[in-house]
Amino acid sequence: MIVAQLSVSVDGYLAGPSPSLEEPLGIGGMQLHEWVIRLEAWRKQHGLEGGEVDIDTRLVEEAVRGIGAVVMGRKMFSGGEGPWKNDPNSSGWWGDEPPFHAPVFVVTHHPREPLELTGTTFHFVTDGVETAVAQARDAAGSDNVSIAGGAMVVQECLAAGLLDELTVHTAPIFLGGGIRLFEDGTPPKRLELLDVVAARLATHVRYRIPA
Amino acid sequence: MIVAQLSVSVDGYLAGPSPSLEEPLGIGGMQLHEWVIRLEAWRKQHGLEGGEVDIDTRLVEEAVRGIGAVVMGRKMFSGGEGPWKNDPNSSGWWGDEPPFHAPVFVVTHHPREPLELTGTTFHFVTDGVETAVAQARDAAGSDNVSIAGGAMVVQECLAAGLLDELTVHTAPIFLGGGIRLFEDGTPPKRLELLDVVAARLATHVRYRIPA
Repeated sequence: MIVAQLSVSVDGYLAGPSPSLEEPLGIGGMQLHEWVIRLEAWRKQHGLEGGEVDIDTRLVEEAVRGIGAVVMGRKMFSGGEGPWKNDPNSSGWWGDEPPFHAPVFVVTHHPREPLELTGTTFHFVTDGVETAVAQARDAAGSDNVSIAGGAMVVQECLAAGLLDELTVHTAPIFLGGGIRLFEDGTPPKRLELLDVVAARLATHVRYRIPA
Repeated sequence: MIVAQLSVSVDGYLAGPSPSLEEPLGIGGMQLHEWVIRLEAWRKQHGLEGGEVDIDTRLVEEAVRGIGAVVMGRKMFSGGEGPWKNDPNSSGWWGDEPPFHAPVFVVTHHPREPLELTGTTFHFVTDGVETAVAQARDAAGSDNVSIAGGAMVVQECLAAGLLDELTVHTAPIFLGGGIRLFEDGTPPKRLELLDVVAARLATHVRYRIPA
């Protein structure tokens, strides 16, 4: 199964306007992830101690359970506006121990040898999202493939009918601009509501996307 | 208190693309309202018999409770692409017994005498949303003012800091295009999550919008 999880504002942005070194997710964009980065489950996954345990914890646990491979765009690998922006050979902004614990397939225009780090190998795929998803599916075996983002990769998966489940974490904020989760052109479709979890810092809604 | 309730698709549209006489809410747009038009509570309000009673019913009851006046845009009054489109003197597409049961203030460029129908008087306000809201507030007294739409009227209320509560009914569909509930430019703001009701045909989320 191919799944995606995205945090988005009430007005539909998964990053705020004017990304910069100080605010790589755009102005106000970090607020989208407040619900998760304060959690013990998330901090542990990122090699950090402490953190909270509450209703949102289940979402993080479900998000990592059964993920056998990850697909992401090049900007997500290397940091949108980070110091790695124009360095196709950077090891990205995930550090030496990336939080994925599964092979990651990066959709990019820059051919490159696989990059092995602790617990993760980044593979660079230069012939598009569908190929990256196919390779990730092979690597995942009977486990799920997670589409980590950004928006364009998710859009392309939707356009190609590749996504089976989408979880939208809506943070209770207006960002006023930035990068939209959904541009015009998502194939019209009726979804199936699978699950809703309401919490103070995000409303989590999981949909099945029929073929 | 000034409140708004809007039904929207997962990809953020409150009407689909290419509105026509047959589909005034755009292609697929009627699906946004499936959750409500099948309900007894809604049908009764519209002078119809029959209908269902379930978890969504509470939302309709809350939506009408304590509404002392309504504000809407001209297209919502007269029917976006209906036969009334270019007739500033039409009585709109709401029929002789409109479902509002409170005075309605229509934001329009066409000055016009008030239109009295059964249970509702439509007032036409030509100097903008803020004036319409002020007049509606006076008419409502201690009751709430409901901003019925469309998107532009809601946007203008948000920009002017007039909206106190927003309820978003998200229907589990992709429309792929149409009229966005939120264009770029909504004032950035942190909202407060008040209430979430999950149902098969819509996830209902109510936010408080701080001043």
